[in-house]
Amino acid sequence: MFKVNDNYLKLPGSYLFSTVARKQREYQTANPDKKIIRLSIGDVTLPLVPAVIDALHSAVDEMGNAETFKGYAPDLGYEFLRKTIADNDYRARGVNIDEDEIFISDGAKSDSANIQEIFSLDNKIAVCDPVYPVYVDSNVMAGRTGTYDKDTERWSDVIYMPCTAETDFAPVFPKEEPDIIYLCFPNNPTGSTVTKDQLQQWVDYALKIGAVIIYDAAYEAYISEDNVPHTIYECNGAKGCAIELRSFSKNAGFTGTRLGFTVVPKELKSNDVSLNALWARRHGTKFNGAPYIIQRAGEAVYSEEGKKQTAQQVAYYMNNAKVIREGLSSAGYTVSGGVNAPYIWLRTPDKMTSWEFFDYLLENANVVGTPGSGFGPSGEGYFRLTAFGSYESTVEAIERIKKM
Amino acid sequence: MFKVNDNYLKLPGSYLFSTVARKQREYQTANPDKKIIRLSIGDVTLPLVPAVIDALHSAVDEMGNAETFKGYAPDLGYEFLRKTIADNDYRARGVNIDEDEIFISDGAKSDSANIQEIFSLDNKIAVCDPVYPVYVDSNVMAGRTGTYDKDTERWSDVIYMPCTAETDFAPVFPKEEPDIIYLCFPNNPTGSTVTKDQLQQWVDYALKIGAVIIYDAAYEAYISEDNVPHTIYECNGAKGCAIELRSFSKNAGFTGTRLGFTVVPKELKSNDVSLNALWARRHGTKFNGAPYIIQRAGEAVYSEEGKKQTAQQVAYYMNNAKVIREGLSSAGYTVSGGVNAPYIWLRTPDKMTSWEFFDYLLENANVVGTPGSGFGPSGEGYFRLTAFGSYESTVEAIERIKKM
Repeated sequence: MFKVNDNYLKLPGSYLFSTVARKQREYQTANPDKKIIRLSIGDVTLPLVPAVIDALHSAVDEMGNAETFKGYAPDLGYEFLRKTIADNDYRARGVNIDEDEIFISDGAKSDSANIQEIFSLDNKIAVCDPVYPVYVDSNVMAGRTGTYDKDTERWSDVIYMPCTAETDFAPVFPKEEPDIIYLCFPNNPTGSTVTKDQLQQWVDYALKIGAVIIYDAAYEAYISEDNVPHTIYECNGAKGCAIELRSFSKNAGFTGTRLGFTVVPKELKSNDVSLNALWARRHGTKFNGAPYIIQRAGEAVYSEEGKKQTAQQVAYYMNNAKVIREGLSSAGYTVSGGVNAPYIWLRTPDKMTSWEFFDYLLENANVVGTPGSGFGPSGEGYFRLTAFGSYESTVEAIERIKKM
Repeated sequence: MFKVNDNYLKLPGSYLFSTVARKQREYQTANPDKKIIRLSIGDVTLPLVPAVIDALHSAVDEMGNAETFKGYAPDLGYEFLRKTIADNDYRARGVNIDEDEIFISDGAKSDSANIQEIFSLDNKIAVCDPVYPVYVDSNVMAGRTGTYDKDTERWSDVIYMPCTAETDFAPVFPKEEPDIIYLCFPNNPTGSTVTKDQLQQWVDYALKIGAVIIYDAAYEAYISEDNVPHTIYECNGAKGCAIELRSFSKNAGFTGTRLGFTVVPKELKSNDVSLNALWARRHGTKFNGAPYIIQRAGEAVYSEEGKKQTAQQVAYYMNNAKVIREGLSSAGYTVSGGVNAPYIWLRTPDKMTSWEFFDYLLENANVVGTPGSGFGPSGEGYFRLTAFGSYESTVEAIERIKKM
């Protein structure tokens, strides 16, 4: 008689963004005349840039021609894309990452959920609180997190690193030693980040205690300040303790196009076992590569035109971030983020809970955001807005909020 | 101190097709003048059909336009594709599958590897022997298979169902009761299949013992005989015990385009727990959908032109299958398969082992196939050839083999 994976049954409620979408849908159905503005899920709105569109068309033509048709992709991804990434994201920053340390995937969400598989089930994870839900939920599904306490909203076997106003929304070294440390800078959801010196301290800490850092750099393209690291491998020794996750979703608008990659350095080992070899084995066994045409689109992001055009998109969104940050500030809200990240993190007014403010904002301004408490207990009393709307709708949303 | 998932270290050798590719590469490097013909990996060679190419171009244009741009896809896949699949693959065959029982993915390889996650780790799997390696390897990685015995090439906690010439390459009910039964018809690697009556017996058996069947129907489009079921849901009661995996790789040449789907009926339950809900939760947490443009390409496979054009491709490959089957037969080989499947399964001559025949064929005919033993111990002494080459290279390969 078959049985299900009981760990799935421990998960409280549904995936955060599914709940947000349902509430929005229900409100819209009840109020069909209202024009809702979504500044909730981190989904981009600008179309793919012309350089990417050209590359897609060209690759589609190749797939329609017997001489240039491509079947199964190489396990790790096409050499042309891995080399382009190694050159542009790493060598250009003085960091040497080899092509065979880069694994092309269908996106950072999959990678950030799957990466835990190559680690022992009795390893203990540490996460920022608040945090992107996938890190925790994927570990819950694997059975690595113990039991859930509804009152504290915490898992018994997870080490939480509160990121609050007191710590400038950065984590501090936990009292208990973790085996696996999830870090995301620029941060989702708080929009905060760390300096290179601060990140070096995390690398030193991980090397000292023998932990591995899962470093999610999905928002790297939004960094505007000089002393913020673009990759964890800018830090000394990071290749001995860190895996880096990267995405094309936010720098090039690939949320619906699906492409990402993970860097697993060859010198990252547990005794003699290479994590690079383990991840290669997982990739080869459980995945069959990203589509050829999408990998060509990814390559085009790094072309001269592609870089110029995607930089303009990032600038467009960061201008929205400025509109939100400054608009809310002038209206008396306490805000952070939005300088090196497309997320603005605000304190809810009048001691409202995050979900109370969600409903209040939806009903009074017809604006959808994401409740901070959905990212973890330390997010309670906070709220996330994203800069990924259109300029016009962002301006209108802020005007509506100001009038509430 | 972090530790790795020890289960990965139990895996013997590398993924089968990686080894085949390496041996081919080494031979080619040592013999640069030889023209190798690959009839090994199940990779298609014909370009995408015009209807699919048109749909891809059109969807790419949508992605370049602000009004029609698509960000994150719905969790389960786009409604337009799920409805098309429900109509064409199920309702047209008198089988009622709802849209929300269909989950769009990046391919059947991922799904066949990931589906085990929603089951308990102490469930026991039964697999055909020989078998597509992903079913077993993904369970090894999860820790569900016990220890590996190098002499018997078997895992202590896996139930093997030998598929040999004596059983016409079909499995028989195992002595020990399994919890999860993997079936693949038309079969990879043997090319065999079962009648609807035979499959009904498996459904009845699963219902009786409370097992779930993971039914891999990736080769459904190659069925040419009337009494062979196209979906397991043609059998009475199958919705209470079976999950079906489907692929666009072989019916429409999507090996490098990546699209598949899994059907999890809502009535499939363990006590009160719906497997449909568990798979939806996994999909929503660990995956972010197949690319929009690829989902549009999948939809075009079911258009009137798409159906006609992909049927021509299948007919082309099946003519290759006939060339291989009849050619080898006339040369004195014992062959099966190739009637309802693109795979031909042959007995190695002169009591050679599968890998001996692999080397013999590579060196003497410069033809690459897949050793039967790579699919499991009962595959020893057998060899798989695929019909996915070009007609010309298939004819030449058979001529070379005849001359050996």
